[in-house]
Amino acid sequence: MDNKLHNELRKEFQLERMVLFSDAVFAIAITLLVIEIKIPELHGEHINDKALLGELKHLIPKFLGFIISFMLIGIYWTVHHRMFGYVTNYTPKLLRLNLLFLFFIVLMPFSTGFYGEYTGVELIREQLKVPMSFYVLNFACAGFVNYLMWVYITNPKNKVAEPPVDPEIAMLARIRSFTVPSVFVLMLIVAFLTNIIFAVYVPILIPILLRVIRGRVKKKFAATTNNQNN
Amino acid sequence: MDNKLHNELRKEFQLERMVLFSDAVFAIAITLLVIEIKIPELHGEHINDKALLGELKHLIPKFLGFIISFMLIGIYWTVHHRMFGYVTNYTPKLLRLNLLFLFFIVLMPFSTGFYGEYTGVELIREQLKVPMSFYVLNFACAGFVNYLMWVYITNPKNKVAEPPVDPEIAMLARIRSFTVPSVFVLMLIVAFLTNIIFAVYVPILIPILLRVIRGRVKKKFAATTNNQNN
Amino acid sequence: MDNKLHNELRKEFQLERMVLFSDAVFAIAITLLVIEIKIPELHGEHINDKALLGELKHLIPKFLGFIISFMLIGIYWTVHHRMFGYVTNYTPKLLRLNLLFLFFIVLMPFSTGFYGEYTGVELIREQLKVPMSFYVLNFACAGFVNYLMWVYITNPKNKVAEPPVDPEIAMLARIRSFTVPSVFVLMLIVAFLTNIIFAVYVPILIPILLRVIRGRVKKKFAATTNNQNN
Amino acid sequence: MDNKLHNELRKEFQLERMVLFSDAVFAIAITLLVIEIKIPELHGEHINDKALLGELKHLIPKFLGFIISFMLIGIYWTVHHRMFGYVTNYTPKLLRLNLLFLFFIVLMPFSTGFYGEYTGVELIREQLKVPMSFYVLNFACAGFVNYLMWVYITNPKNKVAEPPVDPEIAMLARIRSFTVPSVFVLMLIVAFLTNIIFAVYVPILIPILLRVIRGRVKKKFAATTNNQNN
Repeated sequence: MDNKLHNELRKEFQLERMVLFSDAVFAIAITLLVIEIKIPELHGEHINDKALLGELKHLIPKFLGFIISFMLIGIYWTVHHRMFGYVTNYTPKLLRLNLLFLFFIVLMPFSTGFYGEYTGVELIREQLKVPMSFYVLNFACAGFVNYLMWVYITNPKNKVAEPPVDPEIAMLARIRSFTVPSVFVLMLIVAFLTNIIFAVYVPILIPILLRVIRGRVKKKFAATTNNQNN
Repeated sequence: MDNKLHNELRKEFQLERMVLFSDAVFAIAITLLVIEIKIPELHGEHINDKALLGELKHLIPKFLGFIISFMLIGIYWTVHHRMFGYVTNYTPKLLRLNLLFLFFIVLMPFSTGFYGEYTGVELIREQLKVPMSFYVLNFACAGFVNYLMWVYITNPKNKVAEPPVDPEIAMLARIRSFTVPSVFVLMLIVAFLTNIIFAVYVPILIPILLRVIRGRVKKKFAATTNNQNN
Repeated sequence: MDNKLHNELRKEFQLERMVLFSDAVFAIAITLLVIEIKIPELHGEHINDKALLGELKHLIPKFLGFIISFMLIGIYWTVHHRMFGYVTNYTPKLLRLNLLFLFFIVLMPFSTGFYGEYTGVELIREQLKVPMSFYVLNFACAGFVNYLMWVYITNPKNKVAEPPVDPEIAMLARIRSFTVPSVFVLMLIVAFLTNIIFAVYVPILIPILLRVIRGRVKKKFAATTNNQNN
Repeated sequence: MDNKLHNELRKEFQLERMVLFSDAVFAIAITLLVIEIKIPELHGEHINDKALLGELKHLIPKFLGFIISFMLIGIYWTVHHRMFGYVTNYTPKLLRLNLLFLFFIVLMPFSTGFYGEYTGVELIREQLKVPMSFYVLNFACAGFVNYLMWVYITNPKNKVAEPPVDPEIAMLARIRSFTVPSVFVLMLIVAFLTNIIFAVYVPILIPILLRVIRGRVKKKFAATTNNQNN
């Protein structure tokens, strides 16, 4: 019995360690974002406020990229946080899925820097699709792995979450985590088929879709529960 | 009952995870400060102690910026540390406020590097206001978000701190956390209206004001408690 | 008695701290990998999708190196994770072995960057052996220290794992952790004696050997247990 | 009573947080060391094994600096680890001392890089004292703050360690932590008064002195305990 408790605590610590390792990776990735913004360098007599403001103005697209990526990594971290709130057991497969997820997180400072480097005037004039695709695909991949993790965790057969995640919450999590990267892919399709400027507005779909989904799932489950209860 | 304890522990772990994630971000930001100080590079026959000392002398403003930022991040971390000493519950809003706060922490290596790059002779000769404003605004923003967090946490309605923070401590924390960034803003006003050299002395106000505030709040609460007790 | 429990908790915290310190080092090393991939820089009118794709194509060997190193560090972390699942006590020697192990982990972003820099066409044309040897030796050293740690931990005399690790698991862990770096060394021998292209295929041996070893160890222990039980 | 336990746990978590924050700073500083070793860059037809080996040879002093710093940071971390094994309470002063200590840890990647950059042939030919002084002073400062922390923690009046640290261990820790940075200072004196080559051998004194000190303290306490017991 004492041994069982010990094993229980041991397992919990192992799980905790995986979670804290992920947190550290998130924290480093989110902090490294700023490293890609190089400090403007001026020399000699050219140093004055006007010149510095001009240099900062050139950095605006990089700052925008930094802010967006900070928000997105923040959101992914929050979801990861919520997701592991359900996990009570850890399996080699969960560990591998989590490492794959972290791979795309680690890549984000690079893709943010790459996107930020070419988001100036050229983006629209030249209709640059490569940096944007790289960036969007990076976040979409993270999103799809996130979806796979939800599928794995909410499947009661895998016994990683005990008690199992409530079916309504599970379905909501699965559909939502699939929707976000799908909209990213749609954004790329729009960019390639029409104009890159339109693509920028596609993510507005995300909150709308999430709301619709939430409504549908709630309605569906309200019906099911009624049927089950009666 | 067992389930309730489990949920309690779960919630505590979630909260702990948010705190440790913040710690990691603080730790990385404070360590990255040093990365912006580039190692002096000399070549060939020019390498000697005199030349190296000269190069180090050029780095003095950067070192000063590094030391000041280290101290400020250290103070913000200490306050964060104290603040979360009261938090017992975590809410999505607290998580979001905390992420916003961390955003300004993550930005600090950049603004420190930017300020340090232009704090030499040019700062006074050219009355450079851009790097200083960027730097001061960065720390002021962190301060204002810090204030918002204190307001949120010390509000008993939000139930994030239970038992609620003692009203005297709460008021002191709120006023103090608002005073610091306000002095930073005042520093900018002085820099723009008068001379940048005067601005540097404005932060001396901070310890004076904090002492005055502490006295006033204590007196006020001594009176209130007396009234309440009688 | 209360004091004993206190000491027990204290010791556990010390051990936990060593583990979490290792996790942080792993997390930083794995995240720094991406820093060595420099963002392609194009200027003026040369910026277009074709040119950017060309630049990305040049980065493919670096990305491959990044992916392989991410996987290898991920695997080493997983093994470290599993290994410390057995550790219940910590000794100065374990601490030193662990620091030595971390030394080779910390070196990995450098050797990955070095290898990635020279894995293009030149690798085959010039039969470059230096970057590859550096890279492979780095990972082999980590592997051998890992082996030493398994030997130390699974030795019941050292009392770092209590209850002691099951002899079958212990032998499996020791042989496997010795096999992986040995194959790396074999890979180098092949590279130096024959052609560098053949060397790349040597690691395929690893999963095959691991399977054979597992089978042999299982068979041997099945026999031993039978003998013991009868 | 329940409240008291809660406060106890709270305080413990606060202390733990300070420790883990320190660990993260240590982990990042130790991992950043490698960043200062730049990957050798060769272009075009000059890429071959001989040239790369030559480049690596130029990096040897940097690697040596990296290894020494890794060891020293590792030792400081180990001491920090042992020191906080005694701490049961945390005070603002301990927090401030710890931050000051971390300041010198954070500086180490810079001073290691600076030292490594100028430890080649020039060091001896030009008798370069600036990079060496910077490096040695950085580690000496960390050592002296470390000493101050031992003094603070082992002083029973401060009530940070309860039960108080055993007087023998306390005296040993204080003397040893003062000896190490003192030898570093001696190393500088030798470098300035005689030849820089002699200075390199001064640290050999450290293990000798530590052994002598241990013997003396043991003897002294053996006598005291006898007197007290009788």
